[in-house]
Amino acid sequence: MDHAGRLSRLRSGLEENDLDVLLVTHLPNLHYLCGFTGSAAALLVATAGSILFTDGRYRTQAHEEVQGTRIVVAHKSPIVAAAEWLAARRRKSTPFVVGIEPESITAATRDRLASTLKGKARLRSAPPLVERARMVKDAAEILRIRRAVELGASLFRIACRKIRPGVPEVAVAAAMEYEARCAGAEGMSFPTILASGERSAIVHGRASRARVPRRGFVVCDFGVILADYCSDRTRTVHVGRPSDGARQFYHAVLEAQLAAIAAVQPGVTCAQVDGAARGVLRKRKLARYFTHSTGHGLGLEIHEAPRLAAGQAQKLEPGMVITIEPGAYVPGKWGVRIEDVVVVTSSGCEVLTPDKKELVVI
Amino acid sequence: MDHAGRLSRLRSGLEENDLDVLLVTHLPNLHYLCGFTGSAAALLVATAGSILFTDGRYRTQAHEEVQGTRIVVAHKSPIVAAAEWLAARRRKSTPFVVGIEPESITAATRDRLASTLKGKARLRSAPPLVERARMVKDAAEILRIRRAVELGASLFRIACRKIRPGVPEVAVAAAMEYEARCAGAEGMSFPTILASGERSAIVHGRASRARVPRRGFVVCDFGVILADYCSDRTRTVHVGRPSDGARQFYHAVLEAQLAAIAAVQPGVTCAQVDGAARGVLRKRKLARYFTHSTGHGLGLEIHEAPRLAAGQAQKLEPGMVITIEPGAYVPGKWGVRIEDVVVVTSSGCEVLTPDKKELVVI
Repeated sequence: MDHAGRLSRLRSGLEENDLDVLLVTHLPNLHYLCGFTGSAAALLVATAGSILFTDGRYRTQAHEEVQGTRIVVAHKSPIVAAAEWLAARRRKSTPFVVGIEPESITAATRDRLASTLKGKARLRSAPPLVERARMVKDAAEILRIRRAVELGASLFRIACRKIRPGVPEVAVAAAMEYEARCAGAEGMSFPTILASGERSAIVHGRASRARVPRRGFVVCDFGVILADYCSDRTRTVHVGRPSDGARQFYHAVLEAQLAAIAAVQPGVTCAQVDGAARGVLRKRKLARYFTHSTGHGLGLEIHEAPRLAAGQAQKLEPGMVITIEPGAYVPGKWGVRIEDVVVVTSSGCEVLTPDKKELVVI
Repeated sequence: MDHAGRLSRLRSGLEENDLDVLLVTHLPNLHYLCGFTGSAAALLVATAGSILFTDGRYRTQAHEEVQGTRIVVAHKSPIVAAAEWLAARRRKSTPFVVGIEPESITAATRDRLASTLKGKARLRSAPPLVERARMVKDAAEILRIRRAVELGASLFRIACRKIRPGVPEVAVAAAMEYEARCAGAEGMSFPTILASGERSAIVHGRASRARVPRRGFVVCDFGVILADYCSDRTRTVHVGRPSDGARQFYHAVLEAQLAAIAAVQPGVTCAQVDGAARGVLRKRKLARYFTHSTGHGLGLEIHEAPRLAAGQAQKLEPGMVITIEPGAYVPGKWGVRIEDVVVVTSSGCEVLTPDKKELVVI
């Protein structure tokens, strides 16, 4: 990964944002910028260079993972260590502005930073500079996401083999997760959702000990982390012969999903893509059952910018990787969600999720 | 779980902390207080009662999981919805203090709350009231942790069967995690650490594609989440015949671990338990290789209060559940860590982790 290039682009953005340094504390941002994957770190980025602060547990790992950035192993919280390092070097009274990441730093940590730097530097909430950079993926990142998404396809085949009436949802999830690990995944990108029968109406119905009923929908929503990058995919299958109503319900969601995919192209806003899905469901009188947004960016995190929802003015750009996942949920009855990962191209998008979307009947 | 009792005790603590309401935003705290397990929520606790704010994705789930607390399904961020709900009801000019959880709320969210409540209420950083309550587990919680720890024992047996020279670390982890899921675990409580050979010196060496060498230590550190509660256990085994030096190194860590366990009793500070382990390693001239703290509380979270480290004046109390996990790591050579979960009793502690700690040679 091009850590040097990413740091260099970030550095050149500091000045135009009137920041002397940026204190990066959101771990996925820090991972993106310098490659470090540990759980305790702060990265100080200045025009002159960058310094990674971590603690004793990560001494060996930091030196293995991080090149081109100085590493300081602290005997205290890395963020406090970074602030003290700065404070010790700010003896002059020239103005000095430290950018922080307000959406991830805790209120308590900001207070501690302010007190450590008092009189020596001023804290300022920085715009989401790293999040913005991360929205557009480079070729190496897209390749990794592609591999992660491809692994998801084989997991869905396993789900289709395992889903049978009477089988506990969690047994299906276990088989999928085992396959993911054997194929080299670091883990799942979120707790596997396997929601059968009436549970399919629970949007985030994590695999439970409930057993697959003889008849009904099963929502399978799952993803892996493979070589640091996430995948995300939802398929809804039907156990037993679906009623006409079930088929119509499924096809309404599928039509909404295809409409949203068709809307994806550079220059279109995230709200427009969301509106395309929502419009189809409105015509089918199902809009009130579509209770979440149409999708989200993914990469090092399972949910990252942009967000595809009403009011989101962010325009799509080539290289953005997003999910398209409308759904509809009737409490106590059933739910359907269909989700693909797509990459925005110069003329539209490429759907990375390879498998078909006709209703699978088990 | 006794959600009504927990909420009631918290309510009675509001007044003595000069708070009119507490806005609970740390999700494990919220889970502890009302049972909700979704990923988007805020809980407003006042003397008169409590209200859970969540979003449309969690409508069904919230009504299934939460009793005795009013539920509001918002069309925006639940925290913002909670603040607006308060603001709409605060028309009078009497002072009104809203406690927030500064260690978990983000700086940006605090700013948003302050602006929403401006002139109507004052924000104050609350002490960690819920974290303090969570430190001492009730009988139902200890039973759950016991079950989670017991499941860990069978995973370690699988690890011992799977660890062989040439086997990828991740294949061992996959087999353990599959067993955990089949036994009903919601997932692992943290990414499984399986660090073999020289990698054993990496404190947080997550299972990688590296293959187990013909000779050397393998650190296995893993835990499950079972019925919401975490387990955590580390065993270090040796593949091939251990050298005398390896045996001595292992036994120094084991001696440190036993010394720390022997130090656990009500009234003793966390720093004293840490000191007991560190003292043994100091005598063996290994103190500089013990680069982390001796342990931590666990329960709904894998890491929660108290923290067993130098300077921690918190005293142990019956019902606290903590890990005891000293280790020593020589970079580029080897590492050993041994970890049990113990519950503090009226006279000492009970070790929940059943298996033996003699060096297992594979």
